[in-house]
Amino acid sequence: MTATITNKKSCSGSVEAGKTRLTTEWKPESQVPQYVKNELSKPHPNYILAFLNVVQQLKIQRRTGYLDLGIKECESISDHMYRLSIITMLIKDSRVNRDKCVRIALVHDIAESLVGDITPVDPIGKEEKHRREWETIKYLCNALIKPYNEIAAKEIMDDWLAYENVTSLEARYVKDIDKYEMLVQCFEYEREYKGTKNFDDFFGAVASIKTDEVKGWTSDLVVQRQKYFADLTQSITK
Amino acid sequence: MTATITNKKSCSGSVEAGKTRLTTEWKPESQVPQYVKNELSKPHPNYILAFLNVVQQLKIQRRTGYLDLGIKECESISDHMYRLSIITMLIKDSRVNRDKCVRIALVHDIAESLVGDITPVDPIGKEEKHRREWETIKYLCNALIKPYNEIAAKEIMDDWLAYENVTSLEARYVKDIDKYEMLVQCFEYEREYKGTKNFDDFFGAVASIKTDEVKGWTSDLVVQRQKYFADLTQSITK
Repeated sequence: MTATITNKKSCSGSVEAGKTRLTTEWKPESQVPQYVKNELSKPHPNYILAFLNVVQQLKIQRRTGYLDLGIKECESISDHMYRLSIITMLIKDSRVNRDKCVRIALVHDIAESLVGDITPVDPIGKEEKHRREWETIKYLCNALIKPYNEIAAKEIMDDWLAYENVTSLEARYVKDIDKYEMLVQCFEYEREYKGTKNFDDFFGAVASIKTDEVKGWTSDLVVQRQKYFADLTQSITK
Repeated sequence: MTATITNKKSCSGSVEAGKTRLTTEWKPESQVPQYVKNELSKPHPNYILAFLNVVQQLKIQRRTGYLDLGIKECESISDHMYRLSIITMLIKDSRVNRDKCVRIALVHDIAESLVGDITPVDPIGKEEKHRREWETIKYLCNALIKPYNEIAAKEIMDDWLAYENVTSLEARYVKDIDKYEMLVQCFEYEREYKGTKNFDDFFGAVASIKTDEVKGWTSDLVVQRQKYFADLTQSITK
């Protein structure tokens, strides 16, 4: 998402300490809740439960861009991935494996469970953000999922990498719909706050949508939004 | 979920007016937000957007059973379905199509977007709950999804019905994991509230879990929970 980081639950650690220190010291295993650390230190940990306790962080953490704009009780990271996955079920393009899109949609932000929702303008920086996410997905797959189910660990890693490197048409669609879902949510908040919150910056994402089908949805959304604000202005000036 | 209904956002309408009136009058199309009704009354509605605006209700509405217990900022309905879908990716049973499980997990509670999270002890009653959910899934698929993508509408309906009637092994697993996810969440809230909230009633669901794999996960969870409360009691009495 765009804008600066002010997570409900901060996962960024000591930003003040400087980028170099963060780069060398941030580790996913240090970010897990203490009771999960305790579980993992047992001779025979319950890996499934430990993994799910980490995934729970996606329910607890709110999307940074919305928090920054002062949206009260804004959506969680998992709320976003949920609707994103539902949207991928609607793709008409017959070349697309929709079930694969659904999986990619569900895992693409899973590393945020430990990294948090870091935005492009965050002082942590793009490179360090990617390093943390990469370390986290390796940690989740190799240290938590693999001991229970090696195949599942590989599948989740493959889907995450497909999104990260946009190596398939399905990943391309999920990239586009990730933005579209955000824009739909922005417009919903704009309605809820009767235009008093400004989401213009978010709509810069429109330009980076590449597939024709999602471009079509987005154009319709933009037209609706323009009409909404035109009507709102008219009702105020009446 | 168990316990009575006190949704953050009530979708049940005028319960006081009596069951008969509700049975005859409750319609999904009356429950959609006004701006969605306006959209659908246009000559050429944006069906995708209307559908997504309805799905948004799953982000906004909180799970009734947790609200009843006074859990502040408890999870949304979509938070629950998100983690449920992730858990289905971990199933080891080689007879299972995990991608199908993921889809069923994501759509199984989608009718709650308009019906709300009605619990077994709710005055609305089990039969009326099912009628509302059935009317809603037909409405979502036929009136909102089908005009854009007929295949997607059929797939979503089929997955919803598979869960409802437990017509496949995949649906059986999702039924079981739906309960397991809830129990994991209950235990997480018990930890968060340091045992001051009583989730014993929820753990009655353990008995209805049928697959060996999910039974195994649940047994481990129950043992962990017992140990947690034993340790807690010991630390208090020390």
